[in-house]
Amino acid sequence: MTRFTFDLSMSLDGYVAGPEPSQKEPLGKDGESLHEWAFSAMSWRKAHGLEGGEAGADAEVMQEHIDSLGAVVMGRKMYSGGEGGWEDDPNPRGWWGDEPPFHVPVFVLTHHAREPLEMEGGTTFTFVTDGIEAAAEQARAAAAGDRSVHVAGGADAIQQFLRAGLIDEFQVHVAPVFLGGGRRLFDALGDPPPAIELDRVVASPAVTHLRYRVAA
Amino acid sequence: MTRFTFDLSMSLDGYVAGPEPSQKEPLGKDGESLHEWAFSAMSWRKAHGLEGGEAGADAEVMQEHIDSLGAVVMGRKMYSGGEGGWEDDPNPRGWWGDEPPFHVPVFVLTHHAREPLEMEGGTTFTFVTDGIEAAAEQARAAAAGDRSVHVAGGADAIQQFLRAGLIDEFQVHVAPVFLGGGRRLFDALGDPPPAIELDRVVASPAVTHLRYRVAA
Repeated sequence: MTRFTFDLSMSLDGYVAGPEPSQKEPLGKDGESLHEWAFSAMSWRKAHGLEGGEAGADAEVMQEHIDSLGAVVMGRKMYSGGEGGWEDDPNPRGWWGDEPPFHVPVFVLTHHAREPLEMEGGTTFTFVTDGIEAAAEQARAAAAGDRSVHVAGGADAIQQFLRAGLIDEFQVHVAPVFLGGGRRLFDALGDPPPAIELDRVVASPAVTHLRYRVAA
Repeated sequence: MTRFTFDLSMSLDGYVAGPEPSQKEPLGKDGESLHEWAFSAMSWRKAHGLEGGEAGADAEVMQEHIDSLGAVVMGRKMYSGGEGGWEDDPNPRGWWGDEPPFHVPVFVLTHHAREPLEMEGGTTFTFVTDGIEAAAEQARAAAAGDRSVHVAGGADAIQQFLRAGLIDEFQVHVAPVFLGGGRRLFDALGDPPPAIELDRVVASPAVTHLRYRVAA
């Protein structure tokens, strides 16, 4: 059965993006520091067409994620890398370049209907205007075999999926940094919030990978 | 040299107490769930005059904490277990019973001068009215040998100590639970917030112990 997951880097104070996000810095002030562990992992570099990088626990966790990926759901802001409205979207083809790093079908939550967009390297953006349940259904159908549907972000989209009971398990990579402001991942989780169980901890000097199951 | 630390259980969504704290439930709704790992640890039970409990990683982390304790600083609400003002304080001798579980000198941050209070089992409450630097100085003098000064809480007091650059290292015990509201530990950390380094990770099925150093 297709599992629904998310997998995000988070500061110790709970932010997945720092203050004052902009087109130039979509992750806000110091937000890039959340992803240093990934930038230096060999597996991440390879998926992004870069050479070099480090092997080890972080690279293995990243590789696991890449191998499990069947389809992606993301919010509109994550798609276009900005706060602006659709009409003046500065990145009509998305923020992710001509060859986005997903290499699987991506479903973008939006209020504005639009034709699918086929990018290089196996990523297709499909725009879903009828809510997260519909996006979840399309992503489930698109995810091949036993691969997962990964809610990539932002925090809003993940919170919607959590509230709707659509997440089976998730991983947070806790970076040893305080951002002091920005976008909190675990907010507005519903009342009561979902019950979770610790599934696995992988530690490296750069980051702590915490994986949880959502109780059925 | 005396180190300044803190050591708190935190939910995955960053809370050290749940919503709607009261005299009956000073940790708020579901707040007790943060401390389940401690309640079942043999070392914690012994320090609280209880028998039984489990050995293992969690008990060792707890024992380490108990052994390192030289003095404690806490906020007034943590002392009396409530939100009420001093005058109508329902617990003039504190929330912690006749034999509080600290067994070392405790310095309480308050605006109201008061004579020290000697409790059973080695805990003395001293009330400090001239701010955190003064409390830190008194606690440093009281901590014997190479033992630590432990800022016990609440979140407010810890944030003040972090902003003042008075914390050397700290540990958070991340409980596999969402509280969905309450008191966040890592908030109002100053601008820029302190730089930290991951020092140690101890994992058990019940909780993840993350220890960090504050960069000098």
